[in-house]
Amino acid sequence: MKKEVILIALGGNAIKQADEKGTAEEQFRNVRETCKHLLEIVKRGYGLVITHGNGPQVGNLLIQQEEGVSKVPAQPLDVLGAMTQGQIGYMLQQTLINYLQREGINIPVATIVTQVLVREDDPDFQDPHKPVGPFYTLEEAEELKKERNYFIRKVKPAGERVYRRVVPSPDPIRPIEGEAIKRLVNAGVIVIASGGGGIPVVSQKDGSLKGVEAVIDKDLAGERLAEVVKPDIFLILTDVEKAKLNYGKPNEKDIDTMSIEEAKKYLEEGHFLAGSMGPKVKACIRFLEFGGKKAIITSLNKAVDALDGKTGTLIYKNK
Amino acid sequence: MKKEVILIALGGNAIKQADEKGTAEEQFRNVRETCKHLLEIVKRGYGLVITHGNGPQVGNLLIQQEEGVSKVPAQPLDVLGAMTQGQIGYMLQQTLINYLQREGINIPVATIVTQVLVREDDPDFQDPHKPVGPFYTLEEAEELKKERNYFIRKVKPAGERVYRRVVPSPDPIRPIEGEAIKRLVNAGVIVIASGGGGIPVVSQKDGSLKGVEAVIDKDLAGERLAEVVKPDIFLILTDVEKAKLNYGKPNEKDIDTMSIEEAKKYLEEGHFLAGSMGPKVKACIRFLEFGGKKAIITSLNKAVDALDGKTGTLIYKNK
Repeated sequence: MKKEVILIALGGNAIKQADEKGTAEEQFRNVRETCKHLLEIVKRGYGLVITHGNGPQVGNLLIQQEEGVSKVPAQPLDVLGAMTQGQIGYMLQQTLINYLQREGINIPVATIVTQVLVREDDPDFQDPHKPVGPFYTLEEAEELKKERNYFIRKVKPAGERVYRRVVPSPDPIRPIEGEAIKRLVNAGVIVIASGGGGIPVVSQKDGSLKGVEAVIDKDLAGERLAEVVKPDIFLILTDVEKAKLNYGKPNEKDIDTMSIEEAKKYLEEGHFLAGSMGPKVKACIRFLEFGGKKAIITSLNKAVDALDGKTGTLIYKNK
Repeated sequence: MKKEVILIALGGNAIKQADEKGTAEEQFRNVRETCKHLLEIVKRGYGLVITHGNGPQVGNLLIQQEEGVSKVPAQPLDVLGAMTQGQIGYMLQQTLINYLQREGINIPVATIVTQVLVREDDPDFQDPHKPVGPFYTLEEAEELKKERNYFIRKVKPAGERVYRRVVPSPDPIRPIEGEAIKRLVNAGVIVIASGGGGIPVVSQKDGSLKGVEAVIDKDLAGERLAEVVKPDIFLILTDVEKAKLNYGKPNEKDIDTMSIEEAKKYLEEGHFLAGSMGPKVKACIRFLEFGGKKAIITSLNKAVDALDGKTGTLIYKNK
C-alpha cells in the first residue's frame, strides 16, 4: 500500500515561544519538542511534508537590517523571507534527522527554498495591514514613510512606540517550486517547504518572477502546496486543541467536526479570528474543495491523538 | 542517452563583486549575468547541480548580528550559513527559472538546505585561520576574545582596525542531505545545494548532529557532493580562465591540461595559492581519485567554451 502523506503546517510556537528572545538555543529547544511529535507521526508510517511560520524570525532580521544599515545594505523582505527558510529549515531538518537516525529510520529530510506566486493586483498591495518588524515613535514612522516608502500604521492605542510598518499579505496562488517539491516527496523524502508562507513573488509583464515586499499567510500558502502535493491529510498545528464556536465568549464551544458547509457558515458568522483561526479554517475549506479528503486543526501536543481520531477539529467534505 | 550531469561550483564573484556593498539589486544583477552562462550550459543538454560561495553574504550577516545585538540575539555561524543558503539559493533559482521559462525549457530548479559533516577533531578547530566578519581595533578584539571566546588574529600589517575573528575551516566529510539531493537530481531537477560550503556540523558521541562555528571551503564541499551525485564533469568557476604554473612570477604559464599526478606535483611544489587555487586543484584531484572522469577549472565567462574543450584547465585521470 502506498504511504499516506500528511502536509503539516506548524504554528509559530513550534519554533519560538512568544516570551522568548529568539536565541539559537531557545529555537533549537522548541524545535526538538516539535520534532518529537513529528517523529511519532513518521513512526506511524505517514509520509510528511512540513511547512512553518517565520514571523518572529523575520521580525528579528528586520531589526538587524535597521541596526546595521550604516555599515551593511538592508535586504528587502523577500530576501529576508528566503533567509528564514534557510534558518528554520536547517533547525527542523537537523533535529528531525537526529531523531530518525536514533530510531534507525532511514528516511532523508530536506528543505526546499520556496517562492510563492501572488497577484500584482491583489487588493492587499493597496491597503496593507500585516505588521512586521519593530515599533516606532511617530517621528521615526514619519521618516520611514518618507525615506523608504513604508506603509506605517498605529498598532497600539497608547504609548510612545505605537507605530509599525505594515506590509501586504496577498493571497497565495501557487508555489513556484511545487513540481520539484512533488518529485522529492514522491522520491520518499520528508520535505520542508514554503516556510513562512513562501517568498512572495509576482509575475511581471514578460512573465518573469520578481520578489515583493509582502508576507503570505503560511496556512493559506500551505494549502496551495497541498494542491500540488495532494496529501491525504492536511494538518494545521496551532496553540489550541480545537477550533471553537463563539470564541472568547461565555457560550464558547469546541468544534469536534464540521462539514465544509458548516465551516463556511461559521466563518461567515465571524466565529474565527481574522489573523488567527480564520485563515486556518479558510485553508481547510480550500483544501477540501480542491479535492482533499481530510483536514484537521489541532495543537502540536495533540497531533498524534488527532490523527488517531481522538481529538482536534476535523473538517470533512459532505458526500 | 542519459543526460550528462555537471556539478558547478560558482565563485564569489558570481553573486557579489568585491567592490560592491551587497545590496539586493547588485546581487541580483550579478546573478543574472551568472545565470546567462548557466542557461547556455542547460541548453547544451547538460543536467546541473550548482554550489556556490557565501563569504560576503555571511560577512554582512555577521556585521548585522553585532550591530543589532542590544535588541536581538546574535545567531551563531551555522545558522547564518543556513540563512545565506536560503538567500543565495532564492536569487539563483528565481533568476534561472525566469531564464528557462523565457526559453520555453520546462526543467524545475530548487535549492536544498545542506549540512556538511566535519570531524570534531579536525586540526583546524585548534588553530583556526579563516577570517570572517568585520575588522576590529585591539581593544574590541580583546573584549570579543574574553566575552565570546572568539579566536582573533591580526590580519593586516598596519592600521587601527587590523584584527579579525578567525574561524576553523575544517575539511568536509560528506553532505548530510546527499541522498535527498541525489534523488532530486535523478528526478530531473536542477539542484542548488551545499551553498557556502554547507552548514558545518559535527557528529556528537550519541551520533546526533550539531552545528559548529566554522566555515567550509565551498570547492572541497562541492567535491564531497560530487562523490554522492557522481556527475560526469566537475566544473569549478573562478575569476581566471586557467590555473597557472609559477603564479604571479615572471615565468607564469597557463595550464591547459594536467593529469592527477602532475596536479599533485604542482600542488606540492606550491604553484597554487593556499586560500585560492590550492583548494580548487585539491578538490579536482579528489574528484578524479574518487572515480570522476573530468574536472575543469575556468572562469564564469569561459564556462561554455571550456565545456567545448576550447579553454580552461582540464584535469584528467591518467589513461
